[in-house]
Amino acid sequence: MKQHRTWTGVVEMGHGAGGRDMADLIEGLFVTEFANDALTGEEDQAILQVQAGRLAVSTDAFVVAPLFFPGGDIGSLAVHGTVNDLAMCGAQPLTLTAGFILEEGLPMEELWQIVQSMQAAAQQAGVPIVTGDTKVVDRGKGDGIFINTTGLGLIREGITVAPTRARPGDIILINGAIAVHGIAIMSVREGLEFETALESDSAALHELVARILDVATEQVHVLRDPTRGGLASALNEIAAQAQVGIRLEETRIPLGEEVRGACEILGLDPLYVANEGKCLVIVAREAADAVLAAMQQHPLGREAAIIGEVVAAHPGKVFLRSRIGGMRVVDMLSGEQLPRIC
Amino acid sequence: MKQHRTWTGVVEMGHGAGGRDMADLIEGLFVTEFANDALTGEEDQAILQVQAGRLAVSTDAFVVAPLFFPGGDIGSLAVHGTVNDLAMCGAQPLTLTAGFILEEGLPMEELWQIVQSMQAAAQQAGVPIVTGDTKVVDRGKGDGIFINTTGLGLIREGITVAPTRARPGDIILINGAIAVHGIAIMSVREGLEFETALESDSAALHELVARILDVATEQVHVLRDPTRGGLASALNEIAAQAQVGIRLEETRIPLGEEVRGACEILGLDPLYVANEGKCLVIVAREAADAVLAAMQQHPLGREAAIIGEVVAAHPGKVFLRSRIGGMRVVDMLSGEQLPRIC
Repeated sequence: MKQHRTWTGVVEMGHGAGGRDMADLIEGLFVTEFANDALTGEEDQAILQVQAGRLAVSTDAFVVAPLFFPGGDIGSLAVHGTVNDLAMCGAQPLTLTAGFILEEGLPMEELWQIVQSMQAAAQQAGVPIVTGDTKVVDRGKGDGIFINTTGLGLIREGITVAPTRARPGDIILINGAIAVHGIAIMSVREGLEFETALESDSAALHELVARILDVATEQVHVLRDPTRGGLASALNEIAAQAQVGIRLEETRIPLGEEVRGACEILGLDPLYVANEGKCLVIVAREAADAVLAAMQQHPLGREAAIIGEVVAAHPGKVFLRSRIGGMRVVDMLSGEQLPRIC
Repeated sequence: MKQHRTWTGVVEMGHGAGGRDMADLIEGLFVTEFANDALTGEEDQAILQVQAGRLAVSTDAFVVAPLFFPGGDIGSLAVHGTVNDLAMCGAQPLTLTAGFILEEGLPMEELWQIVQSMQAAAQQAGVPIVTGDTKVVDRGKGDGIFINTTGLGLIREGITVAPTRARPGDIILINGAIAVHGIAIMSVREGLEFETALESDSAALHELVARILDVATEQVHVLRDPTRGGLASALNEIAAQAQVGIRLEETRIPLGEEVRGACEILGLDPLYVANEGKCLVIVAREAADAVLAAMQQHPLGREAAIIGEVVAAHPGKVFLRSRIGGMRVVDMLSGEQLPRIC
């Protein structure tokens, strides 16, 4: 068993130069913390035994600022984000890779904390980090740390989840309150304080998705995590890709009081604010009740709700019936709302 | 068929925000240029049909400065580097992913040029880029562009290439002159001029490796691309991992006159300078001649040479017999020699 040690000092250019310092960092920090059978500091690849089938591959770069925020950090986010991208096509995640871009001067203790947090998230999700890479850039040419994770997952037979499968009559569900991740990040940046700590909803959704697929399998048409661009952008993309209309009921969309208040203060529409632990589920109408019940039984779906439906009218457009009964178009996000949210 | 268009202006924060601008960039630039069946702008994953077997996975972050250099750019390098990491465990590369971290203000034309160069390299290597991700960081928090590529490859049965397989008696070959990539980059940074343009050796080595494996299969014990840290660090790692000694013959190591001169001017030891199109091959003694002949028949191996051997003496250490006949220890690179070389 490898010895965990204490890390102090800062990241230096030599940690990315391919010599002894880099080997020490990789062997002593990354390999020791991420400990698993597939990962060694000795090779630039991992080798996995795979079965024949459909392999899902997803990659994501993480640049969130600040690096640490209520409910998570860039490390846990980098695990959850890619695990979720795999889950959203119905894949069971198998494994992750991690590529680090470190800025010269990053405190080693922060790096260590981030790596431990990645490992905790990976372990909780049951998805090992099997290979990686580390580069160091000069001070002022990065922002502490950027992390790229790539995930591999297997899709069971019988599962075909894709945005183009949304069809009129389908029911749209979500597993809980929206806009939490974005507001948790923004409240740190803007120095907002709330009565209770507002924590990011960042979480790995693959087990919730597995429960949904267990009860509805082929009747699950679309899964989508509404991250950057929020609920509005995700549903607009689905409407465009499937050439269907989407109707939402504002009163049914779960939204916490504090998040609502923060959105008002910050001038943000919660429909466009990023989520990191939310999942849109579009299912055949006859499966909706069973899926809702399955979601509500899972810790990450207790507040799950039916929020709208797919219609044949106005293909490519999303409409929202507001609290006071009016209908309005919910367009795709234009320009920038929340930079560096993931 | 998608329309290629002209890109002007600069990267803005909105290009990473998850809305219309990002969709436009992804659909219009990345998906159009990388055109292949698996890649769509519509989903965060690619789905591949795989056969049962050993799947190699490798990930690499690229932060080379400058972005454009003689013989390549960060785009071609990001393809070659990961293709080579797969080839070095004997895998046939199947597919690549690409994660981009763009700095606000990066000229769109530079991004476009880099993407075209990635696509040209991927096409030449026969390895499609099937999924990706784009993030934008504020001006001064990045350095133009960083690229992470992850590669997947399949390892045929009968092939077991690993550093621990080096054993006394084995012969060490290389496919050509060393230190070319590092010196090409440094000469741009330092403003050195040469009589002929000194171009990076950056290249995809998997076809050369396939020829080597065709003629020697199980007799190929180790493959390694001596990138960061150069030949010296790569061989030190192998010596340590296999607990064998390594002896090199200085006169046999291919080294160009211009590179030698530049190393003298820059005060660099070519044994520690990075390569991007070089491959160390350690084979059973009886296979050495056939492997050398196969390498020399390939365009990337014309200058291939036998440069040393594996010995039982001095396990974990690399010795070099110098031009004048003395023996000296070649240690692993300590500290930093060439930052941001890949």
